[in-house]
Amino acid sequence: MAETYPKETSNTVNRYKHQDPSIPVPVVLPMIGQIGHYPSDQQPHCYLHGYVSSRLMNLAASPPGIPLCVAATKLDGFVLTLTPNTHNYNYRSAILHGHGTVVDDESEKLWAMQLVTNSVVPARYEHTRVPPDNAEMASTRILKFRIESASGKVREGGPEDERKDRRREDVLAEVWTGVIPMYERLEEPVGGPYNRVGEVPGHVRRFVDGENARRWTYAVEAARKAAPIKRVKREDEG
Amino acid sequence: MAETYPKETSNTVNRYKHQDPSIPVPVVLPMIGQIGHYPSDQQPHCYLHGYVSSRLMNLAASPPGIPLCVAATKLDGFVLTLTPNTHNYNYRSAILHGHGTVVDDESEKLWAMQLVTNSVVPARYEHTRVPPDNAEMASTRILKFRIESASGKVREGGPEDERKDRRREDVLAEVWTGVIPMYERLEEPVGGPYNRVGEVPGHVRRFVDGENARRWTYAVEAARKAAPIKRVKREDEG
Repeated sequence: MAETYPKETSNTVNRYKHQDPSIPVPVVLPMIGQIGHYPSDQQPHCYLHGYVSSRLMNLAASPPGIPLCVAATKLDGFVLTLTPNTHNYNYRSAILHGHGTVVDDESEKLWAMQLVTNSVVPARYEHTRVPPDNAEMASTRILKFRIESASGKVREGGPEDERKDRRREDVLAEVWTGVIPMYERLEEPVGGPYNRVGEVPGHVRRFVDGENARRWTYAVEAARKAAPIKRVKREDEG
Repeated sequence: MAETYPKETSNTVNRYKHQDPSIPVPVVLPMIGQIGHYPSDQQPHCYLHGYVSSRLMNLAASPPGIPLCVAATKLDGFVLTLTPNTHNYNYRSAILHGHGTVVDDESEKLWAMQLVTNSVVPARYEHTRVPPDNAEMASTRILKFRIESASGKVREGGPEDERKDRRREDVLAEVWTGVIPMYERLEEPVGGPYNRVGEVPGHVRRFVDGENARRWTYAVEAARKAAPIKRVKREDEG
């Protein structure tokens, strides 16, 4: 997630503190997010969970909130071609633009916590010690992001070279072209030092097995498509 | 990579065009980058390769260039704990702040193209049709990013819960806690439709086998460490 405000600083990283505040510096924060439709809202929003700094909180406190760009990218393979410039990745990426505010409503916050937790590991929320107590609710900040425009880009399929190189017998004889599929593989769960539940529970086992099958299939199928396929989709709320 | 300038627009996504230009909107672009030290420079820079828009080009053309934040994150595992709030990831993330300019010098551009290509698949550059011709050199844009401050964050190890929950026998009896290691696995390379090289070449085979061993080992070892380890490092050129 990227924001535009003078960078948060520590004592050791303070050069931006002394910059002209009219020249904003972008800041990127890794966060976890999930799009969901809260029943009383007219449209879905993206809910973000992570470290919400006090500066970010202040900027997000008053309407219309803080301008944000939310970006997510997944790599599905390395596309190896005849020339360095035509090398590529198979990937899926999405960019959202809009404004973020902090969720104040307690029941919406609770709903969003459940949404985000279960978007990572399905059914995990209800398999933990819930509901959060008052101290946990107070210390948790959820950013609610209003999606004002969105674009997505997908690349799948095999290599794509210019005709001038595909006609060169000497190059074709020497350079291997193809795709190395890649996916995020989940390994056997490792019980922690204070774990007392002997067997890995069903919701965790199903998550590991299901994700591995799904992700492997996507990456390998994307690599096996001969013709390169690129899709771009843009949407604007206006 | 995030920048701060009024968002590039298409006809379908134009709401930011009408915004007050004094309120910049952050833009995130997925790019490939590698830090390298060009011999005639005093310090290493981060070289970024990807779609460089005309607006970005214009903003990067004049000194000190465009303010950028370069961010990279790698997930190494899901950390499942007793309560939703204490759930976490094992991860490594880095954030760089500084300014970006476009590489004009032809020999530095060629050097950077080789640096970036070989940082993805070692020795790939010299196994392709090189050097790039004039048209390829003209159409390639490389951003040279001056690192002015940097911070990195690493989380590895097992679950971490509050004492109040680790004392509850009823919770410990019910909730499985541990880590699901995760790593990017490279699958068997798939030859493309115009590939004529029968066997997957050594530099590709070594890349696949080497990365799989290295990434698997990191994720599984990070999961097996009982005590959670968090490291934060910040550096400032000043």
